[in-house]
Amino acid sequence: MIVRPRLHWFRMLLAWHGSVLPQLLSRLMLVLAISIVAVAAHDHILKLTVNMSTVPFSLIGIALAVFLGFRNSASYDRYWEGRKLWGQMLNETRSLVRESLTLVQSDDPRAHVRPFAELLCALPHALRHQLRHTDPRADLEARLPRDVVERAMASRYRPMTLLQCASEWLRNEVRAGHVDGYAVLAFERNFNGLSDVIGGCERIVSTPLPFAYTVMIHRTVYFFCALLPFGLVDSIGALTPIFAVFVAYAFMAHEAIASQLEDPFGTDENDLALNAMSESIEAALHDLLGDPTTPAAREPEQFIFD
Amino acid sequence: MIVRPRLHWFRMLLAWHGSVLPQLLSRLMLVLAISIVAVAAHDHILKLTVNMSTVPFSLIGIALAVFLGFRNSASYDRYWEGRKLWGQMLNETRSLVRESLTLVQSDDPRAHVRPFAELLCALPHALRHQLRHTDPRADLEARLPRDVVERAMASRYRPMTLLQCASEWLRNEVRAGHVDGYAVLAFERNFNGLSDVIGGCERIVSTPLPFAYTVMIHRTVYFFCALLPFGLVDSIGALTPIFAVFVAYAFMAHEAIASQLEDPFGTDENDLALNAMSESIEAALHDLLGDPTTPAAREPEQFIFD
Amino acid sequence: MIVRPRLHWFRMLLAWHGSVLPQLLSRLMLVLAISIVAVAAHDHILKLTVNMSTVPFSLIGIALAVFLGFRNSASYDRYWEGRKLWGQMLNETRSLVRESLTLVQSDDPRAHVRPFAELLCALPHALRHQLRHTDPRADLEARLPRDVVERAMASRYRPMTLLQCASEWLRNEVRAGHVDGYAVLAFERNFNGLSDVIGGCERIVSTPLPFAYTVMIHRTVYFFCALLPFGLVDSIGALTPIFAVFVAYAFMAHEAIASQLEDPFGTDENDLALNAMSESIEAALHDLLGDPTTPAAREPEQFIFD
Amino acid sequence: MIVRPRLHWFRMLLAWHGSVLPQLLSRLMLVLAISIVAVAAHDHILKLTVNMSTVPFSLIGIALAVFLGFRNSASYDRYWEGRKLWGQMLNETRSLVRESLTLVQSDDPRAHVRPFAELLCALPHALRHQLRHTDPRADLEARLPRDVVERAMASRYRPMTLLQCASEWLRNEVRAGHVDGYAVLAFERNFNGLSDVIGGCERIVSTPLPFAYTVMIHRTVYFFCALLPFGLVDSIGALTPIFAVFVAYAFMAHEAIASQLEDPFGTDENDLALNAMSESIEAALHDLLGDPTTPAAREPEQFIFD
Amino acid sequence: MIVRPRLHWFRMLLAWHGSVLPQLLSRLMLVLAISIVAVAAHDHILKLTVNMSTVPFSLIGIALAVFLGFRNSASYDRYWEGRKLWGQMLNETRSLVRESLTLVQSDDPRAHVRPFAELLCALPHALRHQLRHTDPRADLEARLPRDVVERAMASRYRPMTLLQCASEWLRNEVRAGHVDGYAVLAFERNFNGLSDVIGGCERIVSTPLPFAYTVMIHRTVYFFCALLPFGLVDSIGALTPIFAVFVAYAFMAHEAIASQLEDPFGTDENDLALNAMSESIEAALHDLLGDPTTPAAREPEQFIFD
Repeated sequence: MIVRPRLHWFRMLLAWHGSVLPQLLSRLMLVLAISIVAVAAHDHILKLTVNMSTVPFSLIGIALAVFLGFRNSASYDRYWEGRKLWGQMLNETRSLVRESLTLVQSDDPRAHVRPFAELLCALPHALRHQLRHTDPRADLEARLPRDVVERAMASRYRPMTLLQCASEWLRNEVRAGHVDGYAVLAFERNFNGLSDVIGGCERIVSTPLPFAYTVMIHRTVYFFCALLPFGLVDSIGALTPIFAVFVAYAFMAHEAIASQLEDPFGTDENDLALNAMSESIEAALHDLLGDPTTPAAREPEQFIFD
Repeated sequence: MIVRPRLHWFRMLLAWHGSVLPQLLSRLMLVLAISIVAVAAHDHILKLTVNMSTVPFSLIGIALAVFLGFRNSASYDRYWEGRKLWGQMLNETRSLVRESLTLVQSDDPRAHVRPFAELLCALPHALRHQLRHTDPRADLEARLPRDVVERAMASRYRPMTLLQCASEWLRNEVRAGHVDGYAVLAFERNFNGLSDVIGGCERIVSTPLPFAYTVMIHRTVYFFCALLPFGLVDSIGALTPIFAVFVAYAFMAHEAIASQLEDPFGTDENDLALNAMSESIEAALHDLLGDPTTPAAREPEQFIFD
Repeated sequence: MIVRPRLHWFRMLLAWHGSVLPQLLSRLMLVLAISIVAVAAHDHILKLTVNMSTVPFSLIGIALAVFLGFRNSASYDRYWEGRKLWGQMLNETRSLVRESLTLVQSDDPRAHVRPFAELLCALPHALRHQLRHTDPRADLEARLPRDVVERAMASRYRPMTLLQCASEWLRNEVRAGHVDGYAVLAFERNFNGLSDVIGGCERIVSTPLPFAYTVMIHRTVYFFCALLPFGLVDSIGALTPIFAVFVAYAFMAHEAIASQLEDPFGTDENDLALNAMSESIEAALHDLLGDPTTPAAREPEQFIFD
Repeated sequence: MIVRPRLHWFRMLLAWHGSVLPQLLSRLMLVLAISIVAVAAHDHILKLTVNMSTVPFSLIGIALAVFLGFRNSASYDRYWEGRKLWGQMLNETRSLVRESLTLVQSDDPRAHVRPFAELLCALPHALRHQLRHTDPRADLEARLPRDVVERAMASRYRPMTLLQCASEWLRNEVRAGHVDGYAVLAFERNFNGLSDVIGGCERIVSTPLPFAYTVMIHRTVYFFCALLPFGLVDSIGALTPIFAVFVAYAFMAHEAIASQLEDPFGTDENDLALNAMSESIEAALHDLLGDPTTPAAREPEQFIFD
Repeated sequence: MIVRPRLHWFRMLLAWHGSVLPQLLSRLMLVLAISIVAVAAHDHILKLTVNMSTVPFSLIGIALAVFLGFRNSASYDRYWEGRKLWGQMLNETRSLVRESLTLVQSDDPRAHVRPFAELLCALPHALRHQLRHTDPRADLEARLPRDVVERAMASRYRPMTLLQCASEWLRNEVRAGHVDGYAVLAFERNFNGLSDVIGGCERIVSTPLPFAYTVMIHRTVYFFCALLPFGLVDSIGALTPIFAVFVAYAFMAHEAIASQLEDPFGTDENDLALNAMSESIEAALHDLLGDPTTPAAREPEQFIFD
């Protein structure tokens, strides 16, 4: 997906990529077909459909809007909580690098803390691979010494293992007398913060919305859309196809977006841009260390990459 | 309940397990029966039902949707808060193990902290048994030395007793001079966090939604569904059974799900998978200690076990 | 109010105690009477009411549902925040007892910290009496030495005075050299937490929902219910009494519940069970101290006592 | 405004003070006049209004209810956040007084900390005057020594200056050796909390709801109410004035309340009782110090004074 | 935009600046044109439009209101979170200045901490320029020594670089023995708070609402408004233009405001007044230092400048 500047209101009506329209096309066609059948049937076999008013549809429609509104909010909350957790990861790692540069005694702080910073740079990548069930080896090897990579790969929860390594780096600094006792408390606060981030992401990934909600709302939406043409045909006749497809689009699209956002760490078009965010965190840490900013090329205006 | 991958939209319409349909079947049958009576009555004893329009139903229907929406949100908040508390338990125990490995002076940290880690491993099991009013003895004996088990079983709030034991382990380490004063503060923060988790779960379990809400919404839903066929029959005639059952399903299912989620620690199909989560926390702690991951077999993609 | 297991759906329709039905009975009778008048008038003085359609009622009804929904949420938030504060009181007092048992140097910790624990045991009782404007003397005398009771009774904010006494106990321990400096920080965090709990409860009690909201929604609900029969009579005729009372029940009950929950520390049937919760906190602290659990008899499954 | 006990449901219908009715009276009269014109026109110039059905009104009415619902929530959140901040001020100042009594070494703690407590007593008054743009000199002079008053009056953000003075008192105690290092951390936590309270109140006062929302909802409500009589007259005829005024009251009152709560620190009848709350905080601090409670006379049941 | 006192209700109906009316004018004209066409067509080619009832519109209208309500809340939450973050920046920088004045040993604290305070004064300006992608050089040079400016300009995340400089100032004070260990913990808490503020603003800027939501709601609103005249013409005839434009205004304005608030750091008329807020934070810090308040001229009643 390409970077998208703020669109003019008219071009937004026609947007294709990033909207859920492509994914819904076949189902909207189905609604269109049903509508055409309903119109045809209405003219010929009048008897069967004449009784079918829009009354029950408006009853269900309102209930559906309220329930979909609930599902929307719940899914969006998961999406936004996921984003906040990744934002917190940026904040905590930045704070750790800042603290390591100022609270650890050293003649050349930037060189001294590099192994520590590298662990933190690898952390978002390790978490991304865990959340997407992909293999982190390549990304870890590009950033960490071999023994750390092997230790991480041998464990099941790799981000936690990297955090453990960072924690051990601090322990060694304490034993070497470079860090005072009170400073450890400052580091611990951020270590715990990172632990919360990792656990929070695992929580979102491992616990979807209760299945019964998903099923129930899905069923109601599709039933509603399939029957709607028969309800409309009596009052708006030949215009039924236009409106039935329009209403079906509004409801189905909401359900489809909610379904994408429910698992914000997936690879759907509207999911969080974990790749871009991992690189952005890494770039921010290198920036703090005073490194020239190599991965800058891919820095987005907005995180709508992948 | 078996692990469920993301379902195709069409198969989701037909899902049976995990949805609340089985539980509602008898009541939907009742609505169906009432509908058939209404249709029959409408054709023969026209006089009685002809006055019954859908107007009052749309009035109640909207109010009901709003009130059900409220109950839904409140129940789901309880469910999600319960999940967050268990997620926090993972975070706090992980942090405690990490701290014990790095802030306690020892030549062989992993062996040294094992008694402490075992207490933390047993904690989620003890909490699960407390929340479900089941007997924790077997699970405790499999993880803890006998004297600790007896002490826990003799107390009323067993998870707190285990936390107390963990706290005493730290006290002994402090007295033995293995832990510095400032480090105690870091441990205390996480001990308090665990205390909050335990108390939070007890709060959710001991205080349901105000009874009057539950009763009132329940009554309105069932009254509404029972009378609905008589309201629809005048405008949609023979189609009444289809729509009455459909609308009843939408409202009753929402109420049933909300009722399941209200007590998220129960054993309904949509409740939290406390068994899987307890084992997952234990596995995460063993992983941090570098143990080979024995209970891995049951690690789910998503926590929709039991 | 007696302990209530989860009710079968059918028995829930008939529940009397704990629902707000008894309280609304006279007003629903009034609506019934108005409905009967409306039906009678409709048959005889047709001219006057024939113009009265349901249109304006559906307009108001929806608005009312939205506004009642808001009031409901706001009231329930107050109720649930009150419950959370009492839950936090349990967590903070538990943490304080745990800390006093492990961070204070003593040969017999349980005996040593008893005066401190007694202050914490009396705290929830003192707060309950303050919130309900009742006399705490009996409950304090049963738990505390005479001089502390007198000091508390002489002050206006008794829970804060007890907290001050607990704080002074710690000061004396510090001066006696039993507690290290860093440990004081751990205690202070929990003391401040208790201070937040007490202040939070005082805030809820002293600041109701803005009066104009209460009045306005109350007026709209009662006006609406009083006029509704005249609106329904034209379209549903003799069935008006059933529906008018049903709709009135839905709206009035919501308003009545919201009104009960708005002050969650009161003694309405759906208010928080402060008595049971105070005793439960006390039992939890005694359990931590290893005492045999005397007040167990009254421990509820769920806090729906008083 | 006088203290108001919980009103009987019937008397609440007639409540005048504290409701927004007085403020809306002229506008409701206008709606009444328009309604009478509409009824008169309907009987005579039937042609013009006959086409005007209620359909578009129900369309707008629902949208309006949703949007007003949003505005209501946003305004109430500001009100309740303001109340929480003042509640936090009570908690933080109480904690500071408690800490100063137990963590500062002194033979006569109550006399020793009095200058510190006086600064905290003056703080809520200074903040109230800043939020209402009134002159704090009288209230400050009644509580503080002259030089502190002059220093505060010379600054722009007086509450912050008082906080700075309190902070300097602590610095002097530290230099005099009365306070240990770790205790400073406890004080700092509460100082920062007070800083958050002051800044939070400034934020609410300085940033109203986005102007476009206010204007847009205001316009829609008034347009809607002005046109409503013409929409109702066709279906309910001579009853139009009653219903038009009733609906207008429901919508206008909601908008008026939201507008009052939006700036919770103002002096509208439903705004926060800053005077009573300032005095209440002061009384609570004196109570902690063991002073006889002088300003008790004005202690309210509920903060609905001014 | 000029400072706006609270407007009289009647003048608010006519407000132009700050409302979104100017921006919507052309689109409302389009709706007006469509309405006129619809009315004309209705009188002449009656056949085509007679079937077009308002039923489907009321169905869509309600759904639209719910979905727009969701989008509104989500956008406003972003706006208000942005405001809270800037409010937190004020609190944290104030706390840092207060701490530096009281926890750092010096004979002339105000002169001693000036370099530190200057870094904090420049911080909001640097953040504002980063969020708006403008050049911070002029603002930095006016407040900071040349070498710091160059170091900041050479980095990519300038606010973080300034925070790093402030952190290094503290490190030097610690090494010079002016600050005790425990005090560092107090400073670190606020440094981390500032890190959270910066990261939080970056998060809001870099992650808009999911694109699919924006597109979908936009489409539905514009489709709905374009077709509405044809739906209304049958029931309200010549009054169609008035109502169609009115309804279109209500929906389009809501969508336009939500779109402005979604990126609260932009330069739309309803966005946050970052300029005024930066200067206000600076003024508050100078006030704490006891400086005469130079930038006072621009201090607003409310932040509705730019």
